[in-house]
Amino acid sequence: MVALAGIAHYSEWGAVGAFIVCAIAVTLLATLVGRSVEQLGDRFGPGATGVLQSALGNLPELFISIFALRAGLVDVVKAALIGSVLANLLLVLGLAFLVGGLKHGKQHLDSERTRTIAALMLLSVAAMAIPSLAHGLHTPAIAHEKALSIIVSIALIALFAASLPASLRRGNAASDPHAEAPRWPIWLAITVLTIASGLAAFVSDWFVSALEPAMDALNISPVFAGLVIVAIAGNAIENVVGVQLAAKNQSEYAFAVILNSPIQISLVLAPALVIISAVFGLTTLTLVFSPLLVACLLLSVILVTVITIDGESDWLEGAALIALYVVIAAAFWWG
Amino acid sequence: MVALAGIAHYSEWGAVGAFIVCAIAVTLLATLVGRSVEQLGDRFGPGATGVLQSALGNLPELFISIFALRAGLVDVVKAALIGSVLANLLLVLGLAFLVGGLKHGKQHLDSERTRTIAALMLLSVAAMAIPSLAHGLHTPAIAHEKALSIIVSIALIALFAASLPASLRRGNAASDPHAEAPRWPIWLAITVLTIASGLAAFVSDWFVSALEPAMDALNISPVFAGLVIVAIAGNAIENVVGVQLAAKNQSEYAFAVILNSPIQISLVLAPALVIISAVFGLTTLTLVFSPLLVACLLLSVILVTVITIDGESDWLEGAALIALYVVIAAAFWWG
Amino acid sequence: MVALAGIAHYSEWGAVGAFIVCAIAVTLLATLVGRSVEQLGDRFGPGATGVLQSALGNLPELFISIFALRAGLVDVVKAALIGSVLANLLLVLGLAFLVGGLKHGKQHLDSERTRTIAALMLLSVAAMAIPSLAHGLHTPAIAHEKALSIIVSIALIALFAASLPASLRRGNAASDPHAEAPRWPIWLAITVLTIASGLAAFVSDWFVSALEPAMDALNISPVFAGLVIVAIAGNAIENVVGVQLAAKNQSEYAFAVILNSPIQISLVLAPALVIISAVFGLTTLTLVFSPLLVACLLLSVILVTVITIDGESDWLEGAALIALYVVIAAAFWWG
Repeated sequence: MVALAGIAHYSEWGAVGAFIVCAIAVTLLATLVGRSVEQLGDRFGPGATGVLQSALGNLPELFISIFALRAGLVDVVKAALIGSVLANLLLVLGLAFLVGGLKHGKQHLDSERTRTIAALMLLSVAAMAIPSLAHGLHTPAIAHEKALSIIVSIALIALFAASLPASLRRGNAASDPHAEAPRWPIWLAITVLTIASGLAAFVSDWFVSALEPAMDALNISPVFAGLVIVAIAGNAIENVVGVQLAAKNQSEYAFAVILNSPIQISLVLAPALVIISAVFGLTTLTLVFSPLLVACLLLSVILVTVITIDGESDWLEGAALIALYVVIAAAFWWG
Repeated sequence: MVALAGIAHYSEWGAVGAFIVCAIAVTLLATLVGRSVEQLGDRFGPGATGVLQSALGNLPELFISIFALRAGLVDVVKAALIGSVLANLLLVLGLAFLVGGLKHGKQHLDSERTRTIAALMLLSVAAMAIPSLAHGLHTPAIAHEKALSIIVSIALIALFAASLPASLRRGNAASDPHAEAPRWPIWLAITVLTIASGLAAFVSDWFVSALEPAMDALNISPVFAGLVIVAIAGNAIENVVGVQLAAKNQSEYAFAVILNSPIQISLVLAPALVIISAVFGLTTLTLVFSPLLVACLLLSVILVTVITIDGESDWLEGAALIALYVVIAAAFWWG
Repeated sequence: MVALAGIAHYSEWGAVGAFIVCAIAVTLLATLVGRSVEQLGDRFGPGATGVLQSALGNLPELFISIFALRAGLVDVVKAALIGSVLANLLLVLGLAFLVGGLKHGKQHLDSERTRTIAALMLLSVAAMAIPSLAHGLHTPAIAHEKALSIIVSIALIALFAASLPASLRRGNAASDPHAEAPRWPIWLAITVLTIASGLAAFVSDWFVSALEPAMDALNISPVFAGLVIVAIAGNAIENVVGVQLAAKNQSEYAFAVILNSPIQISLVLAPALVIISAVFGLTTLTLVFSPLLVACLLLSVILVTVITIDGESDWLEGAALIALYVVIAAAFWWG
């Protein structure tokens, strides 16, 4: 698949074909990175898995974003960051509720862990939204959005660092569902991780160069491309895993996996990109998103927290979440 | 009363008098439609009642809105849609909490059913608000608000259709409070329903033609008229029923009746009006409401869900909800 | 300390020095007023304490605000009102969760009382925000913000009056933690109250006159000064008490003390200032705050209610609340 992506990149394929091949290759490599991180984590005790996943599991998304920033596609990157959160909270969580609810009736979520994750998710996403509010609403226009974005990024990463010990401990309780997974030898895990990450970097580059011509060919706006297409491709695996867990009636674990992604995006990926773009002189990425993106983000995050904090899910809530996602995506179609 | 309304319409009564008479006649006919739907529903098992009510119970409001659209009063219709939601969520729920709380102390709402209704209400109202957000916040001004409104309307109606089977089943559990109601013969129920609906159509027409002169005479802005007066008149009966149930300490049933109305408005009435206005070439109705209406709508719906999801109500929360309604109405007085 | 503040005011101290001395003097007098109110309240039964505190405990903040309005510092007063709410909800509650959580692990908040206070806080702050929404979002610009602010103020004070009987009863249950406090003779309590209040009026005046030069000297914007500095100075004591209670694992009582302050600000202090400024012809204070202040206020109040309504707190939620406060304060730094 990677070879195919290489061929697509260097030969004279149509823009859309190359884009699709690269998207699939990125997705597969993301799975491979995920699997090897998991295997590696098992060596150091189950708690380390979560931490390693936070640090390395976002590598493919990080590569895509960096190459897109180098190509000047700031709008795509911003939309993809918000889009990943929205896709996880509305589409994937909605699918998980829908599938789980249809198969098993009402599912219960009322453990302390669920509530802690939901609360942390709500607060971290809200903090990430503050620079946009400041930019959009402050009467004397702020010329300092870059400085503010960096301050906020540092605060978010500090919060993430503070949460690591708790995640390590949390991990212990959460790791049971993985228990049956067959183990790879440690050298295999490290080798696969290194190779997959390296390939992911190359394919991400090709994916980004295929993105612009594909957008033109399909007449899709950059914001829609980032919000829907890049966001869904970049999170494909977490998504499938989350829905599968819900189908197996492990609703709490599904919920933890699905909500972990928005937390990682707002506490790690977005701030890291802001700092990397500032340090390495790429096209400057700030945390100032377009007003509609921010409004949809805050609305979704509040809705999902309120709905899940009651400790129950059913398929109709899932259907409503999916409907909301469709409506938001439609609103960005004419971006 | 209907005769009186007819006289008022065709004779030379003052604008305000005619308006008041028509408002009372519409309200009485709405009750009659509601009663006959209920009696009819009992024939087909209690679950059908809820579904029939969703389909037919909004008929008078639908007639008023269609005539108002034909008369070009788009602002009144939009304000009345939002106003119905606000009146139900703040004024009527507030009154129910206040009356129930003063009579019976803290009332409990923590059944699964309550939470499911609150979650569905929150999500459907939020989805209805997306086109307004897109219009108000999207940097490249959207010329596509009509198309977006129709897409959103279809999504909302699809969600409603998906919720019907669950409502049918829910109905079974909820129907006990009705059990003592005396039954009408089936021919009587159908006859009353037909005649009342027909009359409602006429009186709605008169109500709308009386509305504009009355607004002028009383120096009320169209938005305030729709938001407060039309909204309260159009929901008078549900309101009285909801508050009565709370006074009888059937707080969960009261809550279900009161929150069902916003759900019907956002999942059925508003989308149906958008599609009807597009199909029959009336003044175009979109789901783009004024920013202040949307802000008050989203704020209220989030507040009410948060307050009710904790599973308790007391009279002070009721008083606070009423105060919030008064404050919002005051903000629109100088519309 | 008061004498020192007097010296600082009348002598040729540097602006910043005088400001700091006055700030400390105000804080100490606020404590003294608080202590004497508490002692006085004990005479009339424990329930009266809460009511007296609502009426008199805000006296120093009221004095500062009135003098600032007389000096034309409307922006500082507005920012200080919102800032007091934000500082209590994010910084102080965050510290209480952090300290309590680190010392005692998860703390539980799920009494009826907690939820009632959170709900009342949410509704009263939301009502206070309506005039700003109306001003910022209403398409035909409102020339009536003063009238609307007064209507809203009257509604808020009416709601407060309605809540007094319940507070009196609530007070009885809540008073146990005070039980060990040694009593002052009644004449001492009244004397201390009178003298401390009188001195607070003088020192507030000096504090305000020191504020402007200090802002200039330190190059701080009026909004930041009000939002962060005046807000924290004016609530110093409640803050310390709240965090101490959390450290002693009395998390519910800490929560009640901390959330009581935003309720008092929105139901008593802000409306009283609006009415006083209108009646006594000071610089007009309306309830129209800057859009960013309102957005941060509504966001914070919704987040805190959602997070606390689940009935648990842990130190990570506390850290996230503090991070959110830092981010918001940073957003106003370049005000």
